Formats: sequence, C-alpha cells, structure tokens
Amino acid sequence: MDELKKLVRELSKLNHQNMYNDDFLLTWEKTDDEIQSVFKVAEILRNMRENNISPKIFDSGLGISLFRDNSTRTRFSFSSACNLLGLEVQDLEEGKSQIAHGETVRETANMISFMADVIGIRDDMFIGKGNAYMRQVSEAVRDGYEQGVLEQRPTLVNLQCDIDHPTQTMADMAHLINYYGGIEHLKGKKIAMTWAYSPSYGKPLSVPQGVIGLMTRMGMEVSLAHPEGYDLMPEVEDIARQNALVSGGKFVKTSSMKEAFQDADIVYPKSWAPFHAMEKRTNLYGEGKFDEIKELEKELLLQNAFHKDWECSEDMMNLTKDGKALYLHCLPADITGVSCKEGEVSASVFDRYRVPLYKQAGYKPYIIASMIFLSKVKNPVQMMNLLLNKKHERCLR
Amino acid sequence: MDELKKLVRELSKLNHQNMYNDDFLLTWEKTDDEIQSVFKVAEILRNMRENNISPKIFDSGLGISLFRDNSTRTRFSFSSACNLLGLEVQDLEEGKSQIAHGETVRETANMISFMADVIGIRDDMFIGKGNAYMRQVSEAVRDGYEQGVLEQRPTLVNLQCDIDHPTQTMADMAHLINYYGGIEHLKGKKIAMTWAYSPSYGKPLSVPQGVIGLMTRMGMEVSLAHPEGYDLMPEVEDIARQNALVSGGKFVKTSSMKEAFQDADIVYPKSWAPFHAMEKRTNLYGEGKFDEIKELEKELLLQNAFHKDWECSEDMMNLTKDGKALYLHCLPADITGVSCKEGEVSASVFDRYRVPLYKQAGYKPYIIASMIFLSKVKNPVQMMNLLLNKKHERCLR
Amino acid sequence: MDELKKLVRELSKLNHQNMYNDDFLLTWEKTDDEIQSVFKVAEILRNMRENNISPKIFDSGLGISLFRDNSTRTRFSFSSACNLLGLEVQDLEEGKSQIAHGETVRETANMISFMADVIGIRDDMFIGKGNAYMRQVSEAVRDGYEQGVLEQRPTLVNLQCDIDHPTQTMADMAHLINYYGGIEHLKGKKIAMTWAYSPSYGKPLSVPQGVIGLMTRMGMEVSLAHPEGYDLMPEVEDIARQNALVSGGKFVKTSSMKEAFQDADIVYPKSWAPFHAMEKRTNLYGEGKFDEIKELEKELLLQNAFHKDWECSEDMMNLTKDGKALYLHCLPADITGVSCKEGEVSASVFDRYRVPLYKQAGYKPYIIASMIFLSKVKNPVQMMNLLLNKKHERCLR
Repeated sequence: MDELKKLVRELSKLNHQNMYNDDFLLTWEKTDDEIQSVFKVAEILRNMRENNISPKIFDSGLGISLFRDNSTRTRFSFSSACNLLGLEVQDLEEGKSQIAHGETVRETANMISFMADVIGIRDDMFIGKGNAYMRQVSEAVRDGYEQGVLEQRPTLVNLQCDIDHPTQTMADMAHLINYYGGIEHLKGKKIAMTWAYSPSYGKPLSVPQGVIGLMTRMGMEVSLAHPEGYDLMPEVEDIARQNALVSGGKFVKTSSMKEAFQDADIVYPKSWAPFHAMEKRTNLYGEGKFDEIKELEKELLLQNAFHKDWECSEDMMNLTKDGKALYLHCLPADITGVSCKEGEVSASVFDRYRVPLYKQAGYKPYIIASMIFLSKVKNPVQMMNLLLNKKHERCLR
Repeated sequence: MDELKKLVRELSKLNHQNMYNDDFLLTWEKTDDEIQSVFKVAEILRNMRENNISPKIFDSGLGISLFRDNSTRTRFSFSSACNLLGLEVQDLEEGKSQIAHGETVRETANMISFMADVIGIRDDMFIGKGNAYMRQVSEAVRDGYEQGVLEQRPTLVNLQCDIDHPTQTMADMAHLINYYGGIEHLKGKKIAMTWAYSPSYGKPLSVPQGVIGLMTRMGMEVSLAHPEGYDLMPEVEDIARQNALVSGGKFVKTSSMKEAFQDADIVYPKSWAPFHAMEKRTNLYGEGKFDEIKELEKELLLQNAFHKDWECSEDMMNLTKDGKALYLHCLPADITGVSCKEGEVSASVFDRYRVPLYKQAGYKPYIIASMIFLSKVKNPVQMMNLLLNKKHERCLR
Repeated sequence: MDELKKLVRELSKLNHQNMYNDDFLLTWEKTDDEIQSVFKVAEILRNMRENNISPKIFDSGLGISLFRDNSTRTRFSFSSACNLLGLEVQDLEEGKSQIAHGETVRETANMISFMADVIGIRDDMFIGKGNAYMRQVSEAVRDGYEQGVLEQRPTLVNLQCDIDHPTQTMADMAHLINYYGGIEHLKGKKIAMTWAYSPSYGKPLSVPQGVIGLMTRMGMEVSLAHPEGYDLMPEVEDIARQNALVSGGKFVKTSSMKEAFQDADIVYPKSWAPFHAMEKRTNLYGEGKFDEIKELEKELLLQNAFHKDWECSEDMMNLTKDGKALYLHCLPADITGVSCKEGEVSASVFDRYRVPLYKQAGYKPYIIASMIFLSKVKNPVQMMNLLLNKKHERCLR
C-alpha cells in the first residue's frame, strides 16, 4: 500500500487534465506529462491488481472493439482492460477489406455508441486510411454527443493504425521503465529500431514509426536502420527528429543493421513493408486492381529476399553493449528454424529473451486500461485514493 | 430526482402485472396500459442513466441473442440493454438460412437456457416462420421451466420477426412522445407510412406492419401508401383497422405517396417487399428451388424499378403539414446519391433530419431494457423506488 | 438455508486441498474425495442459485474458451459457469483444423492469460492430440506464472479431449446422484455403456471412455458393449478395470447390446468411432492426405451400416431392470425417424426420457463452476460460509 500511495502522489504532480474526455490516437499529440501519466496510472492499476484491489469504475457500460485486421494479443489486451474497469466488450464485425466512409461511418459510430464508454479500433492495413478513419469515428461521436444523441461521449483508443501503434509502444516503454528502474534512466540509452527479414510481406509500419516517435522523447538515442527502399512515412521521421532535439536525445538513420546494433542498449529488429509500396497498394485496392496487387506482392517478396542477412543473430547481438542488449519485439516474431526457414531472429536469441518478451507484452492491458481511465475519470488522483480506500477485492480467495 | 419520482408515480397508475414472466412478441398482444408501461419504464431507465444511477438488477445471468439475419443496431441495442441491467450477452450462432424445427428447437432452447434470463431473437427472413419460431422457443422454455429443467424461465423479446418489429416501432413512438411532449399529444396526428423505392429487394415487412399495428392505437391517423402489389399481411391490416376504431383514430389506405404525405405530421417512407412475393420465396426456400428464387429476385427488382418516383424528396416533404413533417426511418436508409444512385430519400431531406433520426434510434436500448425489466421484476414500481433510494452509481467519475 | 449449511458441512469432511491452483483434465487423476467435492460444490452452487444467493467470487477476470470443435451446450455451460462466478468469457478463435504446436502454443497461452483466471478447452478431434495440447497450454501458463509473466495462473478445464470428457460425465453422474438420492446409492447399480448406430461417422470416443473411467469408481457394474472393431483406447479400459477392482464394482466387456442391457439400471447407448480408425485419421491429417481421409470416412460409414440393429429400441429397453432403466445421452441424439432415418434411439424411448435428459444436461454449468471454484478458492468451505452469510442476491426481483 505504501508503494501505491507513493505512485498516486507522483501522479498528482503530473498535468493530465486535458486527457479527460479525449481520445488517444498518436503519442506525439500528448504532452510529456500526459505520457508519463499513462505509465503512472498503468503502474498503479497493475499494483492494485497484484494486491487484489479492484479498480472497477464502471457498474455497466460497453467497450466497443473494431478490428479491421486480425489480432489476438491486442484483442485480449483490450478485453482485459475493459473488463478490469467494469466495461463489457462488444465486437463490431465488419468486412475486413471494405473501407467504409462518410455517411456510413457517421451513422454506425452513433448507432453502436448509445451506451459505449470507449471504442478501440485497429485499422492498420491501408496507408492514409486507418488514422483518418479513427478521426472520422471520433468526430461522429463527438458531434452525436453535442447534439444530444449520445448520453456520454465514447473516447477512442488507437489499437494500431497506419501511422502509430501507441498501446504497443507505450507497453514497450513501460517494459523499459521497469527494466531500467525508472523513466529517468532511459536518458542516453541507445535503441536500435531496425528492419529485419521476414518471408511475409506487407507488415504494418506503425510499430517502427511509433517507436521512433515515442522513444526519441525520453532523451534516448534512436538509431533507425533499414535497407534502401524501406522508408517510413517522412512526417513521422520529422517528428522523431524534432523530439530528439527537444529531449536532448538523438535520431540517427542508417542503412546498416550492424551500425545500428553497435553498442546498442536495446534492439528492436522487426520486418515492415516499404512505405511507398504500401501507399501504392492502398491505391490499387481503391481502384479494385487486384491482379496488380498480386503482382506487387510478388515484387515485395522478391525484394525482401535480397535482405535475408537482416537477421537478429548471435553475431549481431554480440555487437551490442556488452553483447547484452535487451531484445524487444511486438510478437509474434518470425523465428529462424522455428516459425519459418529464415526470419527476423535466430532461435537462440529469441529463446534467451522469451521471458522478458512476454513481460513486455504483459504491460499492454494496463496501458490500455490507463488510457481509458485517464479519459473517463475527471480527477484521476482523487479516484485512485477513493479506490485505495474502498479496497474492494478483485477476487475473493 | 423529482422528475424520476414523478415518472415512477405515473408508472404506479398503470396495470402491468401480467407482463411479469411474459414474453414481448407483438405489440397488439399487449394492453394500452402495458404499452404505456414500457414507455414509462424506458423513460425512467434513461433518466436514471443520465443521472448516473445504475438500474442493475442482475448480479449474474445471461441474455441470449439469436440473430438469424444481419444486424448492427438491434444487436448493439440488445447488448446495451442486457448490460445495463447486469446480464451478459451470449450469442447463439446458427446457420442463417436453415429453418430449424421441432425437436431441435425444443432441445436447443433448453440447452442454452440453464442460466438465461432473457432470449432475444431476430428471425425476419421468412413469412410465416419467424414469429412461429419464437413461439416454439417460448413454449419450449416454458415447458422446461414447468418440468423443473430450468431454474428460471427466460422470457423472449422479439427483435424483429416476419410480422412485427416491436422494439423498433416502440422506439419510434418513444421518439414521437418525446418530440411532441407526451403520449397524449399523438392523438389526431397524421402519420404517412409509405413504401419507398430502393435498389434492393426483399426488405422485411415487419416495420410497416409494426407501425400500422401500433400507431393506430393512439388515436393517430395512419395513412398507409404503397404501389399496387406491395400489400402487407392482411391480418395486420385488420388489426390496424380495429385499433383505429377503438382508439378514435383512422387507418386509411392509398396507392398515392402524395396523398399520404398531404398534410402529414409525420412521414415514414421505407422500402419493403410485396407480401405475396415473400410468401412465395419462403415456399421456394422450403422446396430448395434456388434457381426460381433467383428468378423471383430478378422480377422483384424489375418491378421495384417502375416506382422510382416513390422517393421522399423535397417536393414530397413540401406537401406535408407546413412542409415540416417529422421524417422517420429505422435506418440505414437508401439515400439518393449517397448510398445508392436512386433511393428512398433525397440527401437534403435526410441531412436535415439526421439528428432526430439518430435520437429515434437511441430509444431502442431503453425500450428493450424496459421490456426485460417488466418481464423479470414482479413489482416494478417498488423496484424502481428501491433503485432510486440505493442510488448506486453507473460509473465513478 | 439448512440444506445449504448441511452441504457445506459435508464438503468440510472431504479433502480437496490439492485442487487449489490445479487443472481438471481427467477424472482418474483426481481422488475420490476430490470427485465428491466437485459434486458437493456443484450442489451447493445450484442450491444457492435456487435460493437467489449469488456465488460471485470475481469482481473482474476473464474466462478464456477455446473450442477447436463445434459446441453449443458445452459452450453455453462454460459461459454460464464463468458468468455465475463473475468471469467474463472471451473466445479464442483459431482455425479448427490446424494443430498448433510448440512455440506458438506457449506464446499464445501466455498472451491471452494476463488477466485470465480459467481456460476451458475443447479439442476432441484428433486421437493423441487433444489432451496433450491442454497439457502444453497448462505447462506454458504455469511457467509464465512462475517466471513472473502472469500475475495469476489460469487453471484449465477440459471441455472434452480425445481421452475424456469430464464435465459431461461428471454432469451425468450428478444426474444419477440426484436421481437415486445420494452417491452412496450408486453402488451395485448396473450401467450399460453401449455403442449405438448413427448415420454419421467419427464421433469422439471421449464420452464412452469418460463414462467407463468414472462410473467404475463408485462400485457400479459397468458393462461396455460395442460391435467388433469399435474398441476404445486400451489405456482407458485398463483404468476402468483397475477402478472396478478398487471400488468393488465390475467392468465387463461384451459385443452384444442385449447382454449389456439385460437387467441394467441405467443405459447410455451412443455412437462413436473405432479407436484405430480415428488414430489413422489423425495420422492422415498430419500427412495432409485428404483423399485418403475421404476414403476412410466412406469405409467407416459402410462399416457402421452393418450395425443398424444397435438401436435403443423399446424392445431393448424391455430387457432392462423392470423395463425401466434410466436412459442417458450427452445430446444431441440421433433419433430414428426424427433427426435421421435410422439412429441411436427410437423416438418413443427418447420422448419418454426427454425431461430427465434435459435435467442431465442441466448439471453441466454447475459442474464446470464447481471445478473453477475448487481450483481458484484456497479454502472452499470458509468461502461458502462467507457467501452464505453475505447472502448477496443473484437478482433483485
């Protein structure tokens, strides 16, 4: 309980009042205090659960999930977060490939929201579409609320879009904070966010983009490495550059995996698709040119195959700080000789980091719950004190 | 709170004791007092939620939903209603096209109901089947309860059948009650329930049937208009006629949209399929004649195309009372130039009524919750007073 | 309440302490006291619900269900059990045919379990695989818990595997206990577990195996009958033989349905597939030989057709004790002239036993809830007393 009270006191020093009734769409739209508040509330919620104290703030209410791409871990994280706070999850199932727009989005958003407190959306398949779609939904329910259609305004949580994957990268950073014993220890640490080979094509760019957009804020040295042609969205790179300037960190680009790994404290090797190819694919979908999409996919696989040496092998790991960099991945990873013939990471490296990797993933439910909490509770510090005094048990045992 | 207490006092003047442990399948099986009780309880629940008072009466229990046709808004309304009262929704997923019968219905109904308090069913595709199916399920669980198989009898809520769509039309009327400031102001109002053109065929008849079966009870003048051949079920028209006689209202049929719109206070233009064609289609399904079904569908689309002038245009709206009739639709509407080339309503008319349309839809969760409440609570007035005294918060904030 | 207190006192005399934090995978891994504890807690939970007392022990938490084969009644039983105790069900949907292994199982098991208290799995399609899969999942989350990845260890409930179907057979026995007025009255009763003809092939062996593995423990005389070639797994027959020896019961095999039915107190006629054929099918799946699987299925249907006389007819029933044996089935049954031309049971027999059959099924939710309760609550007797003192209402009414 002392630890919990200390955490609440720390939360009280952060300014998070603008998070009330607001969405969580991109980390770089949030202030440093707001980002830190998410970590703090997540930590409090985790601590409460470990002490069997229920943080349930809803007696009823729905958490709507809309997954326009497959998901297991984020789906379960969202469910867990909603359930922890007292919301029941209701899935909205749409055809995966169809890109809804205009009237339909506005109407559906309102129709599902009469008793919804939060809407979580994954829409990461189409460059230029996913985040825009979330904003349409947000605008629709904000308008519905203001017009008296909705009794409450459901707030949005970005469960991965074409630009950012905030619940993932915030969970990644929560892992780093715990690993290094405090957010203040991240300053000066070198993280290598690198491309890695995978036998599949078209993996979203939102993780590497989210990582360079978030990690550059904490005074970290972010080294982005990828083969030529595998560029990220230039706007996000600009944000990373700007963040580094402000935070006293660094943002460096290289086309050598080795250079990025050299003396790194943390490595995050992961496959993604070239931005321009994804942009092209989105347009081809829009035009219904499915034969050309197949053609494009073939090209991308071929292009990937040139870079099989971009693997997080033991040799690569040996280049890192004392050969012991912390290995990160959003999972599932393509493991050489296990899930594929040649992949992102060698089996022995993956094996050695399995437990930390699972822990990394374990922060996501709390990060999502924290985002919901901060957007639904007007005075989070007061509410935490209330919950700690109530000490309602999570389970009788 | 004063408003809430006033509503509960009004509820105490209505006789709803026979609703306890009973289903809600057709509005015309309910007395005027019972219909008014549903509106009153819905209003109380809405008011409670707006005042952050939880009306949760279940600590555990399942609400079973069985959708034998696609649904988004009714699905979410049912989920919201169950969740508000404390029931967890469990979907029963069956093949959509298969028409189960006899032994299977009886058995499945019992097997899913051991801890079910309510079963909501949508079965609107086949004339002569949907409502009959609901009654089979109801009979099966009533028998199971009486035989000691089930500890409680789950009550049924008709979420749309081949005959009626009570949760929709009751929500429609709740909207009118709020719009006009009281159910007593509906008397003498003219409502035009008219067919409208849509590029799709085979839309259910349950909405227009439900509307003429319900709205004729309140002393309203119901004008039913459709092109020749687009008849509703004659039994339901008889009920409408009889209702009008009793309530001092009117039920008029015409084959001119203009005539129906003339001086109307309210308009409800909506596509539906001809009753006889739907009957034929049901039989063809039963006989497995899929080629003939395709043929029938082609014919229906062709027949529809003759009536593209049945559109709720600005010109049509100008015919209504002061050109300002309230436009109703159960949504989604086929909007000309938006969701289709030519449709039920012109974009400018739809646009002007969007907010009221969304509000109309917003009553449905409360109507469903009210139906559940009245069927599960022995003394609703006493229970409401209990809940108002308890003042348990819906969410801490 | 007196009855309830008596049941809790009886529970206090049974040793169930090793069930805490343990899985429920096979009945023969549990001691007699543990088996009896499951019945006792199930009975208490049923009694509490009938007295409108809530046994909710969880304020939040997930119950994960993974059905690798179709299911309606077990799905709803698991949902009901979780809901009764306060857990929200979250389905994990995987492709049905794919047999996941190794890395993927370990990772997925942890990824879905961060806030999971129980995992229920049905995996009955492939001989040698289902139970093994459950143990992989169990091992994975145990390891995750010990490594600090998971805050709590979700316990597993076997919702049907290739070897046993404990929630079914325990519900069957709960039915017998209630029917005969006490577990002590089962001693000496003769139960005929017999094969029966069905026009489908490939039904799992887990029910007959589970029945002979459980019923032999209570001093019952279990007569297993099937046509030549329809053997069960030899390991399970060994267990049945051993059980009978210890409990003072009997385990007899015969290839005559009549012999098994002769003077039986209870009959359980049910179709299943030959063990060796199912083993072969599993191997063919593993080798991707789908043509040969089709060939095998044809053979099996042909082989079945030789045994259409294995039907639970009135004539067969007349052979049983006073012609009045209790007829059991896990449902749905293949009823001659109702669900198929020729099946497991004649319509008149089935009809006469419908109510007891439905009651038999009705024990399953309580059996599952009991298994969860005993694995999650450290001191079940103390907890039951706490719940009985609290007397929190299941529903206000």
